[in-house]
Amino acid sequence: MICRRAVVLLSGGLDSATTLAMAVREGFEAHALTVAYGQRHALEVERAACLAGTLGAASHRVIELDLRFPGASSLTDPTLEIPRSRTDREIATGIPSTYVPARNTVLLSLGLSWAESLGAGDLFIGVTSIDSSGYPDCRPEFLEAFERLAYVGTRAGTEGHALRIHAPLIDLSKADIVRKALELGVDLSVTLSCYAPSTDGAPCGECDACRLRERGFRDAGFEDPARG
Amino acid sequence: MICRRAVVLLSGGLDSATTLAMAVREGFEAHALTVAYGQRHALEVERAACLAGTLGAASHRVIELDLRFPGASSLTDPTLEIPRSRTDREIATGIPSTYVPARNTVLLSLGLSWAESLGAGDLFIGVTSIDSSGYPDCRPEFLEAFERLAYVGTRAGTEGHALRIHAPLIDLSKADIVRKALELGVDLSVTLSCYAPSTDGAPCGECDACRLRERGFRDAGFEDPARG
Repeated sequence: MICRRAVVLLSGGLDSATTLAMAVREGFEAHALTVAYGQRHALEVERAACLAGTLGAASHRVIELDLRFPGASSLTDPTLEIPRSRTDREIATGIPSTYVPARNTVLLSLGLSWAESLGAGDLFIGVTSIDSSGYPDCRPEFLEAFERLAYVGTRAGTEGHALRIHAPLIDLSKADIVRKALELGVDLSVTLSCYAPSTDGAPCGECDACRLRERGFRDAGFEDPARG
Repeated sequence: MICRRAVVLLSGGLDSATTLAMAVREGFEAHALTVAYGQRHALEVERAACLAGTLGAASHRVIELDLRFPGASSLTDPTLEIPRSRTDREIATGIPSTYVPARNTVLLSLGLSWAESLGAGDLFIGVTSIDSSGYPDCRPEFLEAFERLAYVGTRAGTEGHALRIHAPLIDLSKADIVRKALELGVDLSVTLSCYAPSTDGAPCGECDACRLRERGFRDAGFEDPARG
């Protein structure tokens, strides 16, 4: 049997950790890619390294680049306020200031470059369109457009080796993701979802990411081991 | 009149310098983006800064990231040989080892992120499908696929502000590009096309990029001021 290689985007949050565990469970030789692009929560990178090591990634690479454009996103510009204490309905409406322009396009591009270099035909991303923050680059039509781009824009594609994008969480609720993570043995105390954690990694409890995560644990009927 | 903003990818070579000059001539407030991704010829970045300053760019940003994956490309891995002294026919056939996996996807993604941050609706790239090295990510179908991706994957796109990709050199021969550059007053002695220049910036004269450039100047009937 020939080993199937995949690149898995790994931020250090609940969703991408679960996605990595799913790729490993499916039998992929999974190479985890973390991109430090100037987000406020750089603690994510440490968490990602820990998760890659414990979840069975074949390797872990960190690419650093500076996507901090002034005023572009509250996730990268500390002079902007991160929205807090929003209701479920508010979270479900519009695109919030935490949107980072073209972030997933950049992340998938870097994943594509590494995948082609490794001879990997599969690229995993932990986006979800349910219980999400409404980012346009988390939708199925975005992923389809990226697959098309990868097909026409790479040597592998032109030689008939199309890259497949996997988004195994796309139709799962946050509660489903929590259940899936626990089933796969992901240590959720390591995962960090908060947009603006304290310096020791404690979640703020009020940003959209914290609220979506809290609701997911509540609906799944589990305590979040990262709260305390 | 409202100023039209554009991002222009600027490597420091003949093609991208000419593209920047064209964007400025067309009246765009042109923001030049150079990506230092680990290419051998890092001298390009210095040349790009010089060109941005002299050609009228409104700003110049350099993003550094490490796209050096072992064995992936002779442009980023010094243990691989850069093809030399190839005939026109050899250059026109297949994809050479200087292909960097998904490079233009990464460059356009970074350009897209900055463009959306700036509120720019236009993104220029100096690719050409004539007298090119046969890279898949220089073809019109690749650019069309990227425009589609930008449309579905950004806030600007979902709000009806589609990003337009401009590739004004796509159908020009290298001789046409030399003529266009001279017409626009580009100082071609500053541009660096060589894949493996000496440390003082002298072109090798033998790589595909040197040979294509040499033929362009010869066909246009001009001396290359960067040789000598």
